[in-house]
Amino acid sequence: MRSAMARAVVGDDDYGEDPTVNELQQLAARILGMEDALFVPTATMANLIAVMCHCQRRGAQLLLGAQAHLHVYEHGGAAQVAGVHSQALPDLPDGTLDLEQLELAIREAHGSRYHPRPELICLENTHSSAGGRALPLTYLQQVRLLAERYGLRVHMDGARLMNAAVAQDVEPARITQHCDSVSMCFSKGLGAPAGAVLAGRRAFVAEAWRVRKLLGGGMRQAGVLAAAARIGLEQAEETLRRDHDNARRFAQGNLELNSPLCSVSLAAVETNIVMVEVKGPSPAELCTYLQAVSEEELAETGHTVSVLLFPWSERSVRAVWHCDVSAHDTELALNKLGFVARKCQEKLAQGQGPSPRSAGEH
Amino acid sequence: MRSAMARAVVGDDDYGEDPTVNELQQLAARILGMEDALFVPTATMANLIAVMCHCQRRGAQLLLGAQAHLHVYEHGGAAQVAGVHSQALPDLPDGTLDLEQLELAIREAHGSRYHPRPELICLENTHSSAGGRALPLTYLQQVRLLAERYGLRVHMDGARLMNAAVAQDVEPARITQHCDSVSMCFSKGLGAPAGAVLAGRRAFVAEAWRVRKLLGGGMRQAGVLAAAARIGLEQAEETLRRDHDNARRFAQGNLELNSPLCSVSLAAVETNIVMVEVKGPSPAELCTYLQAVSEEELAETGHTVSVLLFPWSERSVRAVWHCDVSAHDTELALNKLGFVARKCQEKLAQGQGPSPRSAGEH
Amino acid sequence: MRSAMARAVVGDDDYGEDPTVNELQQLAARILGMEDALFVPTATMANLIAVMCHCQRRGAQLLLGAQAHLHVYEHGGAAQVAGVHSQALPDLPDGTLDLEQLELAIREAHGSRYHPRPELICLENTHSSAGGRALPLTYLQQVRLLAERYGLRVHMDGARLMNAAVAQDVEPARITQHCDSVSMCFSKGLGAPAGAVLAGRRAFVAEAWRVRKLLGGGMRQAGVLAAAARIGLEQAEETLRRDHDNARRFAQGNLELNSPLCSVSLAAVETNIVMVEVKGPSPAELCTYLQAVSEEELAETGHTVSVLLFPWSERSVRAVWHCDVSAHDTELALNKLGFVARKCQEKLAQGQGPSPRSAGEH
Amino acid sequence: MRSAMARAVVGDDDYGEDPTVNELQQLAARILGMEDALFVPTATMANLIAVMCHCQRRGAQLLLGAQAHLHVYEHGGAAQVAGVHSQALPDLPDGTLDLEQLELAIREAHGSRYHPRPELICLENTHSSAGGRALPLTYLQQVRLLAERYGLRVHMDGARLMNAAVAQDVEPARITQHCDSVSMCFSKGLGAPAGAVLAGRRAFVAEAWRVRKLLGGGMRQAGVLAAAARIGLEQAEETLRRDHDNARRFAQGNLELNSPLCSVSLAAVETNIVMVEVKGPSPAELCTYLQAVSEEELAETGHTVSVLLFPWSERSVRAVWHCDVSAHDTELALNKLGFVARKCQEKLAQGQGPSPRSAGEH
Repeated sequence: MRSAMARAVVGDDDYGEDPTVNELQQLAARILGMEDALFVPTATMANLIAVMCHCQRRGAQLLLGAQAHLHVYEHGGAAQVAGVHSQALPDLPDGTLDLEQLELAIREAHGSRYHPRPELICLENTHSSAGGRALPLTYLQQVRLLAERYGLRVHMDGARLMNAAVAQDVEPARITQHCDSVSMCFSKGLGAPAGAVLAGRRAFVAEAWRVRKLLGGGMRQAGVLAAAARIGLEQAEETLRRDHDNARRFAQGNLELNSPLCSVSLAAVETNIVMVEVKGPSPAELCTYLQAVSEEELAETGHTVSVLLFPWSERSVRAVWHCDVSAHDTELALNKLGFVARKCQEKLAQGQGPSPRSAGEH
Repeated sequence: MRSAMARAVVGDDDYGEDPTVNELQQLAARILGMEDALFVPTATMANLIAVMCHCQRRGAQLLLGAQAHLHVYEHGGAAQVAGVHSQALPDLPDGTLDLEQLELAIREAHGSRYHPRPELICLENTHSSAGGRALPLTYLQQVRLLAERYGLRVHMDGARLMNAAVAQDVEPARITQHCDSVSMCFSKGLGAPAGAVLAGRRAFVAEAWRVRKLLGGGMRQAGVLAAAARIGLEQAEETLRRDHDNARRFAQGNLELNSPLCSVSLAAVETNIVMVEVKGPSPAELCTYLQAVSEEELAETGHTVSVLLFPWSERSVRAVWHCDVSAHDTELALNKLGFVARKCQEKLAQGQGPSPRSAGEH
Repeated sequence: MRSAMARAVVGDDDYGEDPTVNELQQLAARILGMEDALFVPTATMANLIAVMCHCQRRGAQLLLGAQAHLHVYEHGGAAQVAGVHSQALPDLPDGTLDLEQLELAIREAHGSRYHPRPELICLENTHSSAGGRALPLTYLQQVRLLAERYGLRVHMDGARLMNAAVAQDVEPARITQHCDSVSMCFSKGLGAPAGAVLAGRRAFVAEAWRVRKLLGGGMRQAGVLAAAARIGLEQAEETLRRDHDNARRFAQGNLELNSPLCSVSLAAVETNIVMVEVKGPSPAELCTYLQAVSEEELAETGHTVSVLLFPWSERSVRAVWHCDVSAHDTELALNKLGFVARKCQEKLAQGQGPSPRSAGEH
Repeated sequence: MRSAMARAVVGDDDYGEDPTVNELQQLAARILGMEDALFVPTATMANLIAVMCHCQRRGAQLLLGAQAHLHVYEHGGAAQVAGVHSQALPDLPDGTLDLEQLELAIREAHGSRYHPRPELICLENTHSSAGGRALPLTYLQQVRLLAERYGLRVHMDGARLMNAAVAQDVEPARITQHCDSVSMCFSKGLGAPAGAVLAGRRAFVAEAWRVRKLLGGGMRQAGVLAAAARIGLEQAEETLRRDHDNARRFAQGNLELNSPLCSVSLAAVETNIVMVEVKGPSPAELCTYLQAVSEEELAETGHTVSVLLFPWSERSVRAVWHCDVSAHDTELALNKLGFVARKCQEKLAQGQGPSPRSAGEH
């Protein structure tokens, strides 16, 4: 990937003259089944541009899940930059929205001059906060029909779209056929250092080009990043399938541990994310123990392993797989989890937790 | 009120020279226990200004109830004009927010550079969508303590604040002592033709003055409106007490009807709003029947009465009292409700609804 | 006017049910030759709504004069609320823009994806900072043709539009036929306490309705203000003609004073504004002297007169006529100006200015 | 540079863990004499973030030159995204603003509640539209003193700051000491593929971090770009000195051509930009001729050369040097200019222009 970056033929993308960017955009558009695509620095920018381009009229309203990345982690760009009112609905455990509730929310405001105008539905696929769940294709179709009935557009925050395609074993375009636009991230699972893409109709992408420039996302010789992104995209299926296998193996192994401290729902592990429910220690404590290494661990297991998980909610920890985590690493992580679980239980039995060492914050 | 408007001494309020406006602002500030107050055309503008003045930093986040007037009926001004991200939480039936959930939402983002900054909590008192519920004083105190703990401000959308004061039989300032700012409406229950007030600290109101001008709310000889507002404010207690009595009487009478078609929760009727749960006809149908007059009604009751209620949700109708609805009107409305309920049941028994006549949309 | 306000039949304008507002809007639309009109609290709001409704696409650009009220005195609402980029061009002394420069500015950005999109031209008529100059009809036509050639709209800030119509002795609609929308103020020259109107095509006004609500300009029983506005509008021609006569008389008298301290350009006095060029004292000093009353004045002229002018620029003072300033008042003001000029010259001859007394800030 | 990118040690910059980005930021901060610096995708984003972070209060006003890149070419982001009102003043030919006019504009609004608040002055250095002029150090000092007197901040759009430092033969920090913040571009003259930096006080940069994330500029393994930027920065002095020499040689050679068709002001060529005044053909035509190659050119000069200049204004063409244009290329370009000028004159003598061939738009 690095050598592809070093060899990339570039040009000034501000004038549309970077061949590597152009090729990547065409490739992405083809894979996503869209007329055109635009390379942008991040998936956050792709989503913000999508909201700005779909919601041009004053008083626009965006409907999305309250746990959507766009609503929680993108600094309120929909409001702050796009000036768009967000109607956030409760996410169901599988990452979908309740369709009746969605329709009710649209109907309440649709055509009423006393409410903001529903203009856009944003779906996240896979849904990160729901643990990487891939949205069912029938659900996507239903959302699209609903949107059409009321004249709304559908944008998919597909930062992890390729994970959904691999999990559902379909072409990405089968998924995105139900959307007006889609964003996709080249870092995260695809392993490129940076960059994302926003795809949609030709006129939409032309408009997106202007907004990208406005936001300061119009880089000049972006081909150096596009070269890496392309490789990530071409190898996505293979890479992600491995990630998914590893995640499932970790979830399975977690069940085999049969520990009262940590449990997973195997059915919810569809892609590269495993949500571990934690009892006993707090999620932050568990992460600290997993990351810390100790002489005790060395003595007991013959090696030391530092595992980086992320305390997610009040009672859960999130584990994410990417291309640099192998099957072997996964086994090591499982062993470490087993070790920590045993220690925690011993200490709990003695009335205290293990003492972590050298644990960096993450 | 009209003659007060005709006699009002006015000046150019854009230069702070309208004595009638100045007196109203001082009176309102005193009643609300705030340092200063600003006369504005509407409560919607008062709320929008409050959001803009409290949330000056980029990336501000506002926490409020998902059914709050500010969130649902003010065209998304927080996002569209103020650029502020709204974190909407579920409202409880009594118009309050769950304090644990509120704190959790603040804690998730507080101090994190990955989230918008929680800056402001907006409460609505009385809470319109909850049926005019007056927020408990202890709840207000708890919200304020929570806000202080995390460095947030509290704005009260007090469009119907005087109703809360009358219902709780306390000085308005006892309620607003838990807030940094409060808006109050002079039309609605207070009966003035137009106008509202925004009150808070002196520096806040000075800032609000600028934003009022920006939004186009800085009228010149506003004293003609302020004169009416003043009378509404001075007579508020008497007027609203009567409204509340009438609303309670209507709720009581509704129970006495003992009709399976419409029911009310007497405990929830704290001010001038009665939410009637409807079974059988749809809320819209019920409103149509109540508004329509017929020969049958004349024959059966000796008169015809047109009652204007408002279809509220999927299964409820909202009745609101104001100064032009007397105790006698309330009895007439009850009689009409009884008549309609009887007819509906007869028709239901026969397998059809009554046929409405001449019902205007409202 | 006050008694009309007291007698006005009103309704809830939020539901379009205030007959007095509706009649005023229809009257204004007819006078302005537009399909529809909307009553708003201020001309500032009317202008802001116009910018927001004409500029719906992202990246819109507004072209206007750098001295336009909209650009200088409306708190940057175009940027701050509407998010619209202003391209401000130098105003010519008669309040017009240089047409070549205007076209050049449009051409530079038109169709270019490297620039914001020119969408709207705002003209001010009469042009306040230029001293109440009425824009020539041929100029308006040329601007309109230019706008059409490039697909832009034209909004007229006609806060003082009726002054232009009276000055040019044409129907207002003759002027506004060259615009897509126009705002007009009912206070200022028309003498109503508050209120303005925004007129344009039906769909534009429907959109404006929503934005008015968003900004908090949707008052309920606005008929009390509309009743006064209507009278102001009906009497406009008579009132303004008198104001213009008085202003011209003042300018004429100023010339007759033949004082080296203050001079006016008679040709530039087209409506109710006189710009007095000041030499010797500063504009602020001159205003102070004109407002102050003294025993000396009483002794010398037999009475005392306080005249309120406004220090405008570094070397000029602005005098404005409205319905409460009579021909007699104008003569008194001229006499006072003569008195002050004499005193200033005497003091200048002695090397000092007169000592002002009791001068309020304005 | 490409191999540095390939070898760069990276990490997740979203967590501040990319060592190559961190080192670049520290290096840039040191060179610019600022406490801290932030790597961003483009100089446009750096400027937008600067405006957003300096202007936090509602109603902020930005003062800058009407030809500034920020005002003309950044899609009105100050208004559209930051909601900041721009007060654009005429640029003088050397890229400075008239200090009296600047102070007048500030004084008019300073402390007035009738105007937007002047909060920020933006200077561009070197000033691109003025032909790459380096702003005099005494001017910068005066602007800073003026800003301090009225409580404003100064941001320098230093996309080409290193050119100014080289032209004035001073450390960059000598220039930026008069600013609160500065942006600098790594592509353009420094030759990196993409990226820019925004530097300022620590708290300002912490705030900028949040806004970068909001806008979607927070890339993950940005070290691959930072590695190239670092090399560009380290070699800047050498590279730019060569560019400036070449530009000056071109300007000199242009004079030596002694053609009536194209002329340059040698005194105005301070850095890597040459503005060529064009008479006879239009700027676009001249650019077309310079880019086109022909058999006639081959026959006459023994080779064909395609020169890319940019039609700038109605009567001028812009030539810019960067690291890939050598001294030899410059001579070839001069020869081509001579050839085209001769041909133009011949054709003019015959009453027509030369016929261009194969000229791409640029």
